Amino acid sequence: MTEDFTLHPQLAADTVPVGSLPLSRVLLANDANYPWLILVPRRPGLVELIDLDEAAQVLLLGEIAAAARALKAITGCDKLNIAALGNQVPQLHVHVIARRHGDKAWPKPVWGAAEPTAYEPKARDGLIAALCRALHIEPAKR
Amino acid sequence: MTEDFTLHPQLAADTVPVGSLPLSRVLLANDANYPWLILVPRRPGLVELIDLDEAAQVLLLGEIAAAARALKAITGCDKLNIAALGNQVPQLHVHVIARRHGDKAWPKPVWGAAEPTAYEPKARDGLIAALCRALHIEPAKR
Repeated sequence: MTEDFTLHPQLAADTVPVGSLPLSRVLLANDANYPWLILVPRRPGLVELIDLDEAAQVLLLGEIAAAARALKAITGCDKLNIAALGNQVPQLHVHVIARRHGDKAWPKPVWGAAEPTAYEPKARDGLIAALCRALHIEPAKR
Repeated sequence: MTEDFTLHPQLAADTVPVGSLPLSRVLLANDANYPWLILVPRRPGLVELIDLDEAAQVLLLGEIAAAARALKAITGCDKLNIAALGNQVPQLHVHVIARRHGDKAWPKPVWGAAEPTAYEPKARDGLIAALCRALHIEPAKR
């Protein structure tokens, strides 16, 4: 099921790996402005949510919900933003973003709103460790 | 289940009703720049996707997928954008948007990208009728 899957190079460049859920690779966006996960189903050739069969859609939904609950529990954010856009990177990927009143883009969507800010490595690794615990996944090797 | 549900006035102002799916009210955004549906689960007090119980999440997913397939079939769009943001209107609502290479915001997200353009009423009503047929729903009374 996961053979021939290759992560799009733009997604690889913009993120650090968190780990793997049963369907999706979980990535953390390299942007300390917002705790921001990206879920990428590990199947080749997907562009749209509706390219997945119904069972896989439901599996992805469960992973989106788990990522959303984990981000909310860890960050205490004010709002979650969930989106599958893919206008610039065609490989199907789902954004799950923790938003705060007063963050750099608030109340606008985050895309294109502010230059990404680099994580302090210790803060980033602490967030990844907390996410792995909340999602019950092994940390990705980096 | 649907008692006490009231559509947020901002969503009512920005859309025209299409009809009702089992869980969600289906609305068409008043913006001819992009064929743009908004699904609003008819339950009071929802803010986040994860405020819905798991069964209702799956129901909503099915309605999102149906709306996406209908929009794609009717418009022949190049890409679908699906998002639950809710930073400005807290009532849970899901955007399902048909995007075209070269539309007014392409490849950026649509929010805040261009002033809404009014529909020509006949074009709007034709789109609504096609959506109702594709979604197997009765047109909303307006």
